[in-house]
This record gives sequence, structure tokens and C-alpha cells, in this order.
Amino acid sequence: MKTASICTIGDEILIGQIVDTNSSHIARELNLLGIQVKYMTSIGDDRTRIIQELGNCLDNTDIVIVTGGLGPTKDDITKDALRELSGAAGYKLSDEQLAIIERILGARGIPMLDINRAQALVPETCTVIPNKLGTAPCMAFYGLGKNHGSALYSLPGVPFEAIGLLPDVMADIRRHFALEAITHHTIVTFGIAESTLAKRIETWEDALPENIHLAYLPNPTVGVRLRLTQFGGQADFTPYIAELQKILGDAIYGEGEDTLQVVIGRRLRAEGKTLALAESCTGGHLSELITSVAGCSDYYKGSVTSYSNEVKMKVLGVRPETLAEFGAVSEQCVREMAAGVLRALDTDYAVATSGIAGPGGGTPTKPVGTAWLAAAKRLPDGTVTVVTECVHFASSRAVNIERFASHALDLLRRNM
Amino acid sequence: MKTASICTIGDEILIGQIVDTNSSHIARELNLLGIQVKYMTSIGDDRTRIIQELGNCLDNTDIVIVTGGLGPTKDDITKDALRELSGAAGYKLSDEQLAIIERILGARGIPMLDINRAQALVPETCTVIPNKLGTAPCMAFYGLGKNHGSALYSLPGVPFEAIGLLPDVMADIRRHFALEAITHHTIVTFGIAESTLAKRIETWEDALPENIHLAYLPNPTVGVRLRLTQFGGQADFTPYIAELQKILGDAIYGEGEDTLQVVIGRRLRAEGKTLALAESCTGGHLSELITSVAGCSDYYKGSVTSYSNEVKMKVLGVRPETLAEFGAVSEQCVREMAAGVLRALDTDYAVATSGIAGPGGGTPTKPVGTAWLAAAKRLPDGTVTVVTECVHFASSRAVNIERFASHALDLLRRNM
Repeated sequence: MKTASICTIGDEILIGQIVDTNSSHIARELNLLGIQVKYMTSIGDDRTRIIQELGNCLDNTDIVIVTGGLGPTKDDITKDALRELSGAAGYKLSDEQLAIIERILGARGIPMLDINRAQALVPETCTVIPNKLGTAPCMAFYGLGKNHGSALYSLPGVPFEAIGLLPDVMADIRRHFALEAITHHTIVTFGIAESTLAKRIETWEDALPENIHLAYLPNPTVGVRLRLTQFGGQADFTPYIAELQKILGDAIYGEGEDTLQVVIGRRLRAEGKTLALAESCTGGHLSELITSVAGCSDYYKGSVTSYSNEVKMKVLGVRPETLAEFGAVSEQCVREMAAGVLRALDTDYAVATSGIAGPGGGTPTKPVGTAWLAAAKRLPDGTVTVVTECVHFASSRAVNIERFASHALDLLRRNM
Repeated sequence: MKTASICTIGDEILIGQIVDTNSSHIARELNLLGIQVKYMTSIGDDRTRIIQELGNCLDNTDIVIVTGGLGPTKDDITKDALRELSGAAGYKLSDEQLAIIERILGARGIPMLDINRAQALVPETCTVIPNKLGTAPCMAFYGLGKNHGSALYSLPGVPFEAIGLLPDVMADIRRHFALEAITHHTIVTFGIAESTLAKRIETWEDALPENIHLAYLPNPTVGVRLRLTQFGGQADFTPYIAELQKILGDAIYGEGEDTLQVVIGRRLRAEGKTLALAESCTGGHLSELITSVAGCSDYYKGSVTSYSNEVKMKVLGVRPETLAEFGAVSEQCVREMAAGVLRALDTDYAVATSGIAGPGGGTPTKPVGTAWLAAAKRLPDGTVTVVTECVHFASSRAVNIERFASHALDLLRRNM
């Protein structure tokens, strides 16, 4: 099994100014290729430390992926450390990356400066994988480390650029190391906690053949993914999946990279139905999840974020008596919000949320983390039915909002 | 200057299943105390590696902060590795943490099991810092490492528990070590690319005293933060900031941890004004940014995500002729959206977006990445003025949406 190190470069990580999201993405991609990540480390913008740490990683793992330390104002340190590590005497110009730099700056109306042009200069020893989304290219170096067999890939630190480059980098790794085949099948579940799930499928799991490995991948927004992996050969996971479906029923909602918003969107498009949202406590997050799926305008008409009671009444038609008697965080209110937005935006389905994300606003009967969720559906005869659910979480504001939103989507999913 | 290492423990990080956000928080707190973070690393759930890596960190830095590797099903490995590292023969019971575990489980209606009770057992050598938000306590060990002067703090991995413990941990570090002063001042800018900014403030930067260090911290949502740091002594950054303000003018919008949504919220609250949003291409992201600020209900009334033309007309009052003649992605449409939502939700300010986030939907004259943005303001006489701006980016869907949203907020900020 090939091994890898993931290194991030930049003082901004060591002083805590930014969160490193790249390493996680890269680790996931390496994992899917069957490569074991042994080290994950952050290095400051310090030439000596960079050379020492990357040298150590190259001596001990087959693949080293570096992000960051590149950019118009930073290039000198990292790029020159890579030049030295790879034994290059000097630099060469990447015409391909220079053309991209010209195009990007031109599109933004930014004049080309010397520091921009310098980004197309790379150590002579490297192979450039062009970065179409940014100015700093990916540089690949081969035959490094104590065994002269390790490869190093240097990527820019900007997440969408680093992630945009990953397919090309992974393809290069697969080619360069002639990796053996690995097959995955992932089932996505929602609504059962990891520990409960583990208990429920224990017998099934114990009966899996030795060469099939099961991984639990919980995620607060997606649910728990169950990933089956087989190294070498071709796997037929069908019988195991069929068995699992018997045990878990409709807690299983998709496979692979499916998310609730993707599955809901696919279903709406197939049925030619439309969706609207009415958000209070989720504050736009639900709409953001739905619109994170490209092409959602085929079925998504829009939403109303009714952060004030005034908007709940005026735009969604929530009755003043409902708010006065039960309050905004109530089954009655969220029911009227869902039906109200379905009618106002003239859709087939609607989802509504009303709760207390925190940190303030909690009461003894409705503590922070409480939310009422509703899913409305227009029946063929034109009448509207609404199902509701009350959830309670005890997390931070941001995490509560995420959980309210995913549970609201799941409520819709189970009632379409 | 004291040095620190931050280590996360858990296979889930090395396989890329979760993003490590704790290390960034911890690094920021250590930085504020004048402690230099030298290492940041992730270790799998592997006893040998844990002992080896933490031992190495203790030998080379004064403070080691560990997160993760604790929890009812994981305790054995990490906690026992810490016992061995600290030279403890056995375990002791923390009555204080046991009482918290009883309270937490009781509130959730979960019966106390042996594995829960075991979480209050800690190596004899450690000092417990109770964790009020979760079942695993923070364990502090002193006098470790090759010089018998290093301290190790072990925290649970759940982010809100780890972050909840940080004030107590930092207070303990401050007491335990003699720390020299470090001063930071951060200026937040928007609308000038990092490379252009670097060029524009080059002379100013070159004139900074040797003991003041400048860092560029670009972020697509926040803008470019310029961070001045002085190690030792007390710094007066005032003259340098004043000079910078002359050069950058209103591109500077805040300081420290300010974001556009925080600055806008502060201004609205101070003036007793209200805000509404009309989102098309940003799909709820703008609303999410505004509602990410706790207490925003003081000034934020809500939003309409008008993903379909029908909703633009029906809810926001965009004229059919406008859509027919100019299309949804047009100055005319976004102008009517902003004024429309301001009137519909009866607010003082409104922001609207309409564009093509991609990957589909582009045309030769309106390519993917194009958006029209508008900021509307109600004047004292009741009339509404609207300013507009057309932006173009060439990124992924998610990043285009982020940039549309931040530029829309900046348009409002510059026209309040």
C-alpha cells in the first residue's frame, strides 16, 4: 500500500487565521485511491523548516502533497525551497500557465505586474499541471526522497484552486505509481445515530467477506455514509447492499456522493414538481443547500426568509392569532409558514423552519436548539397537507442551523 | 518566547472524513498570548504513534495541546498513552467530571453506563479542568519533556466542547508560564486584489520598523486582512494605520475579526435601520451571511430568494416588460428587485443579486460568473434610491456565489 503525507504551508495556518480545509479534501481523494495518509502537518513560511519537513516526508512516504506557500507575495520561500529540494539549478517559464494568468487578470481588469508574471516561473525539475482557476500552477516533482522514488505535488492554498486541481493530480498519481484497482460502494443514510446504526447492522457487518471493508463516515449535514471497499479485482456489492436495505429501510436515501438536496432535486425534476422554502431560524441556509445543486432552477422557485413576525404575516400569511397564542417557534406557526409559502410561490412542495439557533433567545419551555420543521405537499385535488416535526440540538449557533436544515430536508424527503 | 505544538488525534482526520477546525481556534488563542505555534500535526488512533509524536512535541515545545482521541468508545488508546507518557501508574476518579457526566446524561434521558462513568477516570498525574459541555474532561499534565518543563493539555475533539474549554486552558497556561507580550492590529480591506494591494502599499510597508511584521491574509468573503504584529514591548500602531488609511481610503472597512456582515449589522443597529434582501443567483447565501451574526433579528427583517421569474414578478414586483426586454440578469431587473423587496418587507435598506453562478446558464454576452448587484436605500422623504454594480468572476459555482454575495454586501456598505 502506497503512503502519503499532506503538508500545508503558511504562517496564516500556524497563527490560526485560516482553517485548513484542503488537507481533508486531499486525504479523502487519496483514501479513495487506496493510499494511506500517514502524516498531516502544517509548516510556517520558513525556508529551513519547509526543506527539513518536506525532506522528512519524502523519505518516509511515497507521495507528498503540499498546499499553500504560493501566491504573488509569497512565492520566493516555498518555490525556492522546492527548487533546492528537487536539485534544480534554476527556473523555467510555463507558457501554458502564463497564458492562464493573462486571461484571469484580463477578465478581472487587473493589469499584469511582474509579480504576477513571476508565478509562471517554476523550478526546471518540475512538471507543470496547469491551474485553470488561478495564477499559481501545480508543480509535480518525481524521483525524490531517500529511495529516489517519491513524488511531490505542490498546489496553491486557495481551496477552490487546490480542489479544482485534484482530479488532475490524482490521475497523475494513478499513472505514475501504477496503482492497483480499488472499488467502493457508498450508501447514504439519515436519521440514525452512528452508534445505533453500528448496533443495528452488527450481524450484517460480521458476515461481510474478509476482503470487503466497511467504513462509517458520519457528517452532520449528510447523515452517516456507509462505504464498502474492496482492494484488487472487481467487487459485486449488490447482495450486501440488498441485505442492508432490508435492515435499514428508508433510512437509506442515496448512494455515493448523494446529499439530501441532490436526492430531493432529482426526485422533483423527475416528477416535474416544484419547491418553495420558508425559513426563519435557518436564515437562508436551507435555500443555500438547495441552490448548491447546479440546475436547481428547474424545480426550485424560491424562498422567503421570514426573520421577523411582520414578514411571516405579511408575505407568508401566518395569522396574527397563531403568533400571539403559540409564538413563532411552534407547530402551528411552522405549519402556516409551509402552507403559506407553497401558496404564495405556487409550488407543489414547501419546507418551513422556525426555531432558536442561539446563543440568545432561549426560554425554559423552548430552549436554544429547539426547532419546529414542516413539509407541505399539494395533493392532486389542490388541497395542501403538512407534516411537522420538533427537533432539539445542543450545539453552537452554526451547528444548530446546519442540523435544523438537514432534518427539514429529510422531513421533506420522507414525505414526498 | 514560549513555543507550542497542536496535535489532533483520530483516524477520521487522516482519511479526510472531517475537517479539523479546532487547531485553528487553538492557534489563534495561543498567538494572542504570544506563544509561537511551531508544529501542527494529525495522528491516527495508534498508540505507538501517539506516544512517539507527543513525546517529540513535548521535547521540542513548551506547550502541547491535543484534541480528540477521547470519548466513550475511544478512551483506551489516547488516555492510556497519556498515562504512560506522564509516568502515571494508574487512574483516579474526577468527582467533578463525574457529576457533570451524570447531569448531561440525565438531561438527555440516557442511563449511565460503565463506559460513561469511565470517562471521569483520569491518569493520577493529571490535573482535571472540568468540561461542562461534554463528558470527556480536559486533562493537564506538567513537568514533561526532556527538560521536565513542558505542559500537555488533552481536550475532547468535539469542536464546541474543545472551544468551550479554551478560556480555562489559556488561563492555566498564562498562570503556569511567564509570557512576554505580543501585539496585533488587523485592518480589513475589501475590493482590492492582494497583488494590487501589495503594490499600492509597497512604500508604506518598506518604511515599517524592523520589529513590526506585516501579514497579508486574503479571504474571498472577508477581503484582504492586513495584520501588523509586534513581538515584545508595547506597540503603538496608530501612525502606521493612519498612513495606511490615507493610501487605501474606504477600501478599509473594519479591523480585527470584522466581516462585511458584522460591520453592516453594527451600523444598522446603531442607526436603528432595517435590512431586507432579494436574492437570485446567491440563492440564500447572502441571507445566511447576515444571519450568521447572532442578534441580527434586531435589524434584519428577512429576504426573498426569487429563483424563478414568476417569484420576481409576483413577490418582488419586477415588471414583466423588464424581464422581457432586459432579462433577469440585468441592471434594470436587479434595481427593481432591490426596490421591490425594500417596499414589500418595509425596510430602510435592501440588497439584490441576479447573475449566473454556473456551471450552466451562460451566454456570450452574459457569461457564467456575471452578476448584477444592487443596494437600495430609503431616503427621509420616502423615496428610494438604488445603486448598481456589475461584477464578473471566473470561478466554481460555490465560489462565484460567495463572491457575488460579498461584493453585494460591499456595495451596500459603501452606500449606507
